[in-house]
Amino acid sequence: MISLADLQRRIDAGDLSPDAAIAQSLEAISAHERSVGAFVCRSESPRAQGAGPLRGIAVGIKDIMDTVDFPTEMGSPIYRGFQSRGDAAVVTMLKQAGATIIGKTTTTAFASMDPTPTLNPHNHGHTPGGSSSGSAAAVAAGMIPLALGTQTGGSVIRPASFCGVAAIKPSYRLLPTVGVKCYSWTLDTVGLFAAGVDDVARGLAAMAGRPELLLAPGIPTPRIGIVTQDFAGAPEASGGEALRIATKAAERAGASVRAPDVPEIIAQAWQAHSVIQEFEAHQALAWEYRENYDAMAPLLRARLDESKGTTPSAYDEAMGVAGRARQALAKIFDDVDVILTLSAPGAAPKGLGSTGDARYNRLWTLMGVPCVNVPTLVAEGGLPVGVQVIARYGADAAALAAARFVEEALEVLYGN
Amino acid sequence: MISLADLQRRIDAGDLSPDAAIAQSLEAISAHERSVGAFVCRSESPRAQGAGPLRGIAVGIKDIMDTVDFPTEMGSPIYRGFQSRGDAAVVTMLKQAGATIIGKTTTTAFASMDPTPTLNPHNHGHTPGGSSSGSAAAVAAGMIPLALGTQTGGSVIRPASFCGVAAIKPSYRLLPTVGVKCYSWTLDTVGLFAAGVDDVARGLAAMAGRPELLLAPGIPTPRIGIVTQDFAGAPEASGGEALRIATKAAERAGASVRAPDVPEIIAQAWQAHSVIQEFEAHQALAWEYRENYDAMAPLLRARLDESKGTTPSAYDEAMGVAGRARQALAKIFDDVDVILTLSAPGAAPKGLGSTGDARYNRLWTLMGVPCVNVPTLVAEGGLPVGVQVIARYGADAAALAAARFVEEALEVLYGN
Repeated sequence: MISLADLQRRIDAGDLSPDAAIAQSLEAISAHERSVGAFVCRSESPRAQGAGPLRGIAVGIKDIMDTVDFPTEMGSPIYRGFQSRGDAAVVTMLKQAGATIIGKTTTTAFASMDPTPTLNPHNHGHTPGGSSSGSAAAVAAGMIPLALGTQTGGSVIRPASFCGVAAIKPSYRLLPTVGVKCYSWTLDTVGLFAAGVDDVARGLAAMAGRPELLLAPGIPTPRIGIVTQDFAGAPEASGGEALRIATKAAERAGASVRAPDVPEIIAQAWQAHSVIQEFEAHQALAWEYRENYDAMAPLLRARLDESKGTTPSAYDEAMGVAGRARQALAKIFDDVDVILTLSAPGAAPKGLGSTGDARYNRLWTLMGVPCVNVPTLVAEGGLPVGVQVIARYGADAAALAAARFVEEALEVLYGN
Repeated sequence: MISLADLQRRIDAGDLSPDAAIAQSLEAISAHERSVGAFVCRSESPRAQGAGPLRGIAVGIKDIMDTVDFPTEMGSPIYRGFQSRGDAAVVTMLKQAGATIIGKTTTTAFASMDPTPTLNPHNHGHTPGGSSSGSAAAVAAGMIPLALGTQTGGSVIRPASFCGVAAIKPSYRLLPTVGVKCYSWTLDTVGLFAAGVDDVARGLAAMAGRPELLLAPGIPTPRIGIVTQDFAGAPEASGGEALRIATKAAERAGASVRAPDVPEIIAQAWQAHSVIQEFEAHQALAWEYRENYDAMAPLLRARLDESKGTTPSAYDEAMGVAGRARQALAKIFDDVDVILTLSAPGAAPKGLGSTGDARYNRLWTLMGVPCVNVPTLVAEGGLPVGVQVIARYGADAAALAAARFVEEALEVLYGN
């Protein structure tokens, strides 16, 4: 993979020109894109900017985000050839930080469940996950050092886990969703994929203009709460193993580890997620569903058909549950700095018929808390499995620091 | 003005065809549009739908909301001729309820402060207010029975007050902003303009699919808290007079009236509004400001220039203040059903150089609470002045019912 931190250091030191850094991505794309299929379209002659912390960094943008330089097709024929007038806010923020937008990455239709043609770079017989399929795969294949995705259920953390890359789903609205196609306004969150935790932190800090998100030297030792999310069912063997290994590594590195009580309201919020997501999707995608029913992707259409009867009062109740659960979760963070939990049930499932299961991601998206995927082990078939490190709402710096702690602890455990 | 309730009753009774109702709007537009200038563009041959509670209702849509049938130009040359692919969620919701979209109404550039050419129908030498200038004026001039606007500072309640129409800024996110140009995602709220409170309630209930928002027979007598918003400065004579008259009318009609203590944190939240609004605007309008600086409307550009230095930490602090103020405000609503306060400093100011002052609206937009404008008196020059009735977050039905109580009490006071 291409490390953003490494590129930044070499560019800052004058050992690498920003244009040479972009050229490195172009070569890697030439080598891997044909087999992985991560991009929808690409810049013909991308140029590096001369200034900014992300100069020389080639970034892939999920194709539900508006871009003046490329069409935005939402993974759906309904938006074939659609050209927005402007850039999504996060795209302008990247450009302002010096980055080069290298192309648009594949997305499931409207960031829902219908798979894209993208393959998992680690094993072409498996899904890269979704809905940010192309962004996760492009970073994992070593084509680009940074990519943007979005998460409404588990669309950043799950593909990151399946593809073996670091990723952050920041606190709700730390990054704006202006110019990003909406599925559910209570849930949709823009996230970043990069090679490692430090790379992700640098990308986010530069985009958001928040240097406090950079990793400081001397990562503090976190108090960790292990949450197994039993309300979401049991994981597969590889998912459970990842959580055990990450826990062991963190303990050996000196972290205090406990298993906090998870109040019932939090399990209820996990249930409430789908009610909120689908009720809002019926409004957010009202034009598409009403006027372009036949052109809707089949899994998404079936999901909307099923959830058609969700009443405003069921939605209001679900929103009430979410609010109470956020308060209960905040109390858990009085005793631990971060929660360590599953990123996905296990490794990427076989085949391309499904992008995998978001059941270990939904709750945290609804809670609005920052989640960081840390690649943890490589399971059978060469498929990666990650864990997620989660902090209190607004404590994105703490989530990143603790994720780096776990990442480093795993390096020690594996003797790297 | 054209009453939506009246049209609905006559259409339901079979006394008026939906097409005849639309034709009535078309005639009124022919008569008044030339002098008022409320529309940016209009449907050439609008047709009524055959079903739905809003069949026969001609609706004007503020020109920052995406429409498949019309360009969406945002009041700015930057979006000249821009054609969205789909309809904004609220536009589809109107169509689903049977309404006919009759045209796009004028908006200040990106719903900010630069005036549109629209004139106040009650006195052409005065502003209709902004930013939803065309929607307020079109209803006030009797051209259409319903129009949509948005409020980020005071862009629904203020023009409604200046134009003498009823309007609601519902609870935050009761109506989706998907497909509506964003200025500030924490604040932007879609609202409705109509002739009277009952008309507004019917429009909102039909759009949102929430029949509980309809006024029930036998309006309950509310406990009213009078809030003068001293933190925002003193009103003009006509604004103060409107609040006194509405208070007197409500008291005579039997309402209990008191002046609740307003804790300091709420005054701080009033201050925090601008920090949040401008920080988010710099992200929401990042492409426009960065790539089209020269084409930006001058007042908006100056505002963005001035607020350029707002730091993420100032923003985070302002968001924290807002959260604490929401809790303090919720406590006030333990003792009163609604708050009655100023809709604007006074009548619409003279000239078209300014759309007026949003200082009595900002706090409530940030609090996310439902606000209803009730036209209260006619000041010098034939210019209307309203008051606003505000309920607890989510209690839109209570806000509408109490606003109808005040409206009826004023009818009694004036001997109508």
